Amino acid sequence: MGTRLGKQTIRLDSRPVIQAWAAIVGAKEGQGPLRRYFDEVVEDEYYGEKSFEKAESKFIRETISKILMKGNVSTGDIQYLFAGDLLNQCTATSFGVSASEIPYFGLYGACSTIAESISLGSMVVEGGMAERVICITSSHFCSAEKQFRYPLEFGNQRPPTSQWTVTGSGGVLIGSAGDGPRIVHITTGKIVDMGITDANDMGAAMAPAAVDTITAHFTETGLPDDYYDMVVTGDLGEHGKNLCIKLLEENGINIKHCYNDCGTMIYSPEQGTDCGGSGCACSATVFAGYLLEKLSRREINRLLLVATGALHSPTSIQQGESIPAIAHAVGVEMQQN
Amino acid sequence: MGTRLGKQTIRLDSRPVIQAWAAIVGAKEGQGPLRRYFDEVVEDEYYGEKSFEKAESKFIRETISKILMKGNVSTGDIQYLFAGDLLNQCTATSFGVSASEIPYFGLYGACSTIAESISLGSMVVEGGMAERVICITSSHFCSAEKQFRYPLEFGNQRPPTSQWTVTGSGGVLIGSAGDGPRIVHITTGKIVDMGITDANDMGAAMAPAAVDTITAHFTETGLPDDYYDMVVTGDLGEHGKNLCIKLLEENGINIKHCYNDCGTMIYSPEQGTDCGGSGCACSATVFAGYLLEKLSRREINRLLLVATGALHSPTSIQQGESIPAIAHAVGVEMQQN
Repeated sequence: MGTRLGKQTIRLDSRPVIQAWAAIVGAKEGQGPLRRYFDEVVEDEYYGEKSFEKAESKFIRETISKILMKGNVSTGDIQYLFAGDLLNQCTATSFGVSASEIPYFGLYGACSTIAESISLGSMVVEGGMAERVICITSSHFCSAEKQFRYPLEFGNQRPPTSQWTVTGSGGVLIGSAGDGPRIVHITTGKIVDMGITDANDMGAAMAPAAVDTITAHFTETGLPDDYYDMVVTGDLGEHGKNLCIKLLEENGINIKHCYNDCGTMIYSPEQGTDCGGSGCACSATVFAGYLLEKLSRREINRLLLVATGALHSPTSIQQGESIPAIAHAVGVEMQQN
Repeated sequence: MGTRLGKQTIRLDSRPVIQAWAAIVGAKEGQGPLRRYFDEVVEDEYYGEKSFEKAESKFIRETISKILMKGNVSTGDIQYLFAGDLLNQCTATSFGVSASEIPYFGLYGACSTIAESISLGSMVVEGGMAERVICITSSHFCSAEKQFRYPLEFGNQRPPTSQWTVTGSGGVLIGSAGDGPRIVHITTGKIVDMGITDANDMGAAMAPAAVDTITAHFTETGLPDDYYDMVVTGDLGEHGKNLCIKLLEENGINIKHCYNDCGTMIYSPEQGTDCGGSGCACSATVFAGYLLEKLSRREINRLLLVATGALHSPTSIQQGESIPAIAHAVGVEMQQN
């Protein structure tokens, strides 16, 4: 099954259904403009645990519980878990999903991971190899700052192009049947590396990857650029978003009227996050909180989610290497009435 | 397509074919007992590059080239690349696969990654969503020591339970048609955490995961425990291998006659690697070098590859956490004449 439309895009003919979704976020995200769309806001950055890393694992664990509850299923009903995070060796996920005992595929796509996991999960459902899968990612501001930049205690200055790692976890339950939003198209990214070396300007590194994937999506599907009610990248931030619009226009694609970026949606400008949000949880919580709610209420009917990832490490940056970036797109649509 | 046999196992009814394979290794691996099975032995640990990390990326890049050449295909014929490595944020892979421009799914399963990638790759082929995929992993002794343990210059002592990270890359081209070895069963691991906290004894942490997956495989497929000509774990090492045999016997599974471990196969005892090999490239190069050759020459006809991964990080170990482990099994068979 699945119909190949081009080098990067397939159409899923069975249209796997997003049967349930959940997003749990931290305090700062809970003060942002999307606050009422999240299932839970956790005020304590430790989430009652003794380290930020364990807190991040708890975000995943609790989000899985919430998804199961909302989907009215148990762990035994789920054939595969597709998940990942930003921490070295993806340990937030390993410890977070361990207790579930669901067969597990660990992924690393940096901030693009939620779209990567949804792509793989829905392909496995489309292929008839699973009835239900969970696709989930997490990030945590404190564990990410410590690992990628400086210990929080150091109190470093943030350059104006920097982004703020979202604390939280978002995920979906995808199944072969049901009434929810459906996965219709998958456009899988290839790595795009434009030679950007500034890890504080990930928007600039990732925008060309988003443009590459969005261009491939419209070219290969043949859909007009006004087909979607919303095209949402994540997480380019303010700077990357502007770059993305400009570069798309150069490719003859005008989605300005319906385009937004998860990094710019999750915080309000007064929250002092410079260019906006980032992290695996950024597009995951905006999607599994806000966007799926808008779809299920039919406030929008067609969404293209284009999650973007910067595939560098602190070591590669210290060694002066460029930032390879990737963007995976998932076309989600409500059934026509 | 695909027939679900149990919670963790599916049978692939189309039996995707391993159309080509390649393994490139470092000098030490080239001095081991499997030397004549590798496509290339690279004597220079820098592989002509300026860092161990860049050398590791080159192993992947060159192995992809070799696979394409042996499969008589070009990058444009490959729909997806499933790949990963041990480095933080999987950068060896990002930089290694970037130039190929193949749509890319990044994976993290530690040393189990080759079986994870083959599982996902062959499921996507089985589902009809790709005609050809490449599944590949890498590791490098020098980049791994530096990251997980100590800088090489420190000259630390190695405890007797330690394993030696394999330098190299191994991968396969999986397609929907052809004459090669075929992927028949996939048993996907769940995380098993027995509370082991010693990162120098990964064999003990991973053996229970291997046992869990092998037990699930035989139980769910209903195959007798003498079905396979070889059952090969990777990479438990000498210590973990003995544990695995013992624990399997307790579960009523006796595979002693046909069982081996990639970690114990790749080096000879005189090479001073303590318990043997490890790293994403260990099972990948033993599989894509030695085992697939044995299959294609029909010296064996049925193989169960059970790649094992220890999903910890230096941070989780320093924080006193246990080592979550996982094992993914892939049943590979030659067509009956």
